[in-house]
Amino acid sequence: MTVSTTSLPEPSYTFQATVDAAGPQVVGGKGVRISIEKEGQVYDDMLDAISGAAVGSLGWGDEDVFEIINNAARSSTYSYPPLITNKAAEALSKFFVDNSPKGAFAAALWCCSGSESNDNAIRIIRQYYLERGLPNKVKLISRASSYHGFTLGAQSISWNPRVDAYEPYLMDREKIVIQISPAYSYRFKKDAETEEAYSQRLIDELEKKILDNDPDTIASVTVETLPGSSLGTCPPPKGYLKGIRDLCNKYDLIFHLDEVMCGTGRSNPNGKLHCWENFLEPCDAPDIQTVGKTLGSGYVTIAGVLVGPKIRDVYLSGSNSVAGGHTYSSHAFNCAVALGIQEKIKKENLTANIFEMGNLMGQKLKDALLSKSNIAGDVRGIGGFWSIEFVKDRATKEPFDCSLNVGGRFKAVCFDNKLCVMGMPGNPDGSCGDRALLAPSFIITEEIVDEIVEKVVKSVDILSKQLHAEGAW
Amino acid sequence: MTVSTTSLPEPSYTFQATVDAAGPQVVGGKGVRISIEKEGQVYDDMLDAISGAAVGSLGWGDEDVFEIINNAARSSTYSYPPLITNKAAEALSKFFVDNSPKGAFAAALWCCSGSESNDNAIRIIRQYYLERGLPNKVKLISRASSYHGFTLGAQSISWNPRVDAYEPYLMDREKIVIQISPAYSYRFKKDAETEEAYSQRLIDELEKKILDNDPDTIASVTVETLPGSSLGTCPPPKGYLKGIRDLCNKYDLIFHLDEVMCGTGRSNPNGKLHCWENFLEPCDAPDIQTVGKTLGSGYVTIAGVLVGPKIRDVYLSGSNSVAGGHTYSSHAFNCAVALGIQEKIKKENLTANIFEMGNLMGQKLKDALLSKSNIAGDVRGIGGFWSIEFVKDRATKEPFDCSLNVGGRFKAVCFDNKLCVMGMPGNPDGSCGDRALLAPSFIITEEIVDEIVEKVVKSVDILSKQLHAEGAW
Repeated sequence: MTVSTTSLPEPSYTFQATVDAAGPQVVGGKGVRISIEKEGQVYDDMLDAISGAAVGSLGWGDEDVFEIINNAARSSTYSYPPLITNKAAEALSKFFVDNSPKGAFAAALWCCSGSESNDNAIRIIRQYYLERGLPNKVKLISRASSYHGFTLGAQSISWNPRVDAYEPYLMDREKIVIQISPAYSYRFKKDAETEEAYSQRLIDELEKKILDNDPDTIASVTVETLPGSSLGTCPPPKGYLKGIRDLCNKYDLIFHLDEVMCGTGRSNPNGKLHCWENFLEPCDAPDIQTVGKTLGSGYVTIAGVLVGPKIRDVYLSGSNSVAGGHTYSSHAFNCAVALGIQEKIKKENLTANIFEMGNLMGQKLKDALLSKSNIAGDVRGIGGFWSIEFVKDRATKEPFDCSLNVGGRFKAVCFDNKLCVMGMPGNPDGSCGDRALLAPSFIITEEIVDEIVEKVVKSVDILSKQLHAEGAW
Repeated sequence: MTVSTTSLPEPSYTFQATVDAAGPQVVGGKGVRISIEKEGQVYDDMLDAISGAAVGSLGWGDEDVFEIINNAARSSTYSYPPLITNKAAEALSKFFVDNSPKGAFAAALWCCSGSESNDNAIRIIRQYYLERGLPNKVKLISRASSYHGFTLGAQSISWNPRVDAYEPYLMDREKIVIQISPAYSYRFKKDAETEEAYSQRLIDELEKKILDNDPDTIASVTVETLPGSSLGTCPPPKGYLKGIRDLCNKYDLIFHLDEVMCGTGRSNPNGKLHCWENFLEPCDAPDIQTVGKTLGSGYVTIAGVLVGPKIRDVYLSGSNSVAGGHTYSSHAFNCAVALGIQEKIKKENLTANIFEMGNLMGQKLKDALLSKSNIAGDVRGIGGFWSIEFVKDRATKEPFDCSLNVGGRFKAVCFDNKLCVMGMPGNPDGSCGDRALLAPSFIITEEIVDEIVEKVVKSVDILSKQLHAEGAW
């Protein structure tokens, strides 16, 4: 149903996206559907295949969550973390310790965004080395084509064209932040190379970087287990994460996994929480991990840092104190709501559901898109997190010119087909093509999978034809 | 009433403050009272004179807010800001534009913490100069003894001993961040100097710094209107803020006021929002301002950036687009709750109430503390935000040695007297003494003022006697 309305604010007073216009506005949501008001019209029954921004694990308008929120509000009182804490923060921390592989994590800090979490992870790592009397271990290794958030600290360990404008305010990108290659099999694994051999090549590169930069001055290696917006859900090749883990052990570095977008039930094979459980044994767990998004399902603004026993023990035998804190760290209300949401996901076994349904969606997309001629070059992902990379030429993998804005246009075509996806631009240097991201809510059924696949395939066909007509494909 | 309990989690799983122990926990709150569980006992009827951390404008457990939260949850659906926005964010932005002095602000961005807001302010200022084709205007001027948040970006423009540990990850503190003196009349205004002369001396120093650092490479000047945790509510001397405003105009710099702690109703003389309205005409408004804390009264984790027409107009005539965004920017639920809270504050005229009651509290504290011999050296503040600075010698203003932890001990003595305050350490170099901060909720009555004053005076007497017995005072 499409109805007209005249209630859009004009002009916009919110300083984001397009400055002079409010842009499309969400005006309702239920389950996997949302209603959007755009240019005076309401578009009902939009199928949200990205759950906002890989956020809405439980879907929208969940009556149980409303009840959780109501109870959390009435049972929570604000407290200032350096002085006073609260039971909800403790309970949420314990939930994550208990529901992670045994021994993986020992404590958690709750923040208000994934950006803040990665920013805090850097500070926690810093204090870890200060506690050990190693103030010179400062360098942070992270990957090309990466995104770890929007604070200046999180941007500093990110490598993508979007951060370049802020360079004067970022950490020194030679002396402090060290870049390594991404694990990006679609483009950079050689045809003759096995997955294991590609992993070894990447690990050898990392070891050379470590040795070239003096291991005694290196603090950590940060990797998204399954990279999100800046690379598009490239699964790590076999042995890759274990190889990083081993090098971190060998050279005394902190192994930091960023699972803000890919974790907390989004892509876990065992009905549990973490994406890395696809690839690593519990004994190879990261030393520190950041989480967010699905944690609060978009109902509250919460994210966090999970801290392993290696780090916690060093603090315990040192100052026994974490320096500083945010006004809103471990906010009781946010923690109580997130805990209620995570308990519902666990009780209803929704992590297992999204792993199965998401993989089904991925397989169906692969079958449908790659069996015929269109702009889809690669379909990749794990569980509830998938991407389609668009290319000008499937054989050579040549990406589209950035000026064509293929990612943005795909999102718009999907919108016309009543489907919400995320469309991301390629890298200007051609090292990555335009991409569409899919991350539906954990509650999807096979029927919804089929509807997503049908709408995606239709949208790919439409955009392929458009680009063909323009001579661009 | 003090009852025992055995429900404290043991050990702590939350990675903040003391690592191995959960510490005191808030277990309830109503109005200006909170209940705290500590070492197995519940302390009821604690009088919260700091409203958490200058957060709880409406006080705790407000039934109207529960209703606001319930309605906001049911009417809000998450949206990803770069793609889709929402009416609550627009309405909250409009509320701030409409309730600020005419022409002061034109738009707002909503974030999840004051730290994120200051971090975003730096990015907004950066893009402002890029839009104007002035990429070399990068240097950020801020003050000694300042605090602007806990992200690495916000820490970079802060100058206090707590940020030093993170120095490798902060912006270059010579080439990028430039320090000026605080406006701190108690210690640095000469006896023979008028307020105006002191202001002029500070403004002359700022102008010299600007000229010494090439104005064409300077981006902004950042100041807390009424400094919070790192200096303790020193009111700016007459003409000081106007002097900064004029220099920003003269040298084409952005004037950034940080009102995260002191603003949004905390200390406004006209029943309105901003602290700077005590000192500046509307035509001298800041170009950009950060807000937080009382905005959501601790019920939700929200803060923001108010953007003046000077900045918005440059964007409008440039890209008409704000680059990037957080997953949780302008979060519909948070914005709806904050708007409900601000509307209630406005309707019940609570900003005027806290200005009157807070000034009464300040005057009574001055009268009671400074009329007799004790460790209080200065009592200062405006409206709902006051500090007591402790000194070894009232005549010479010599601060206590930091190792005595006078600020922390004062907080503890107050706790024993069923009063919550914030206790801050002095600077190790003696440039600022230990301080206690008071920032009660906006709902206080004269009866509550008297109770706060009585408990503070009693606590000062107790700590004075303790320190005297130890030979420290």
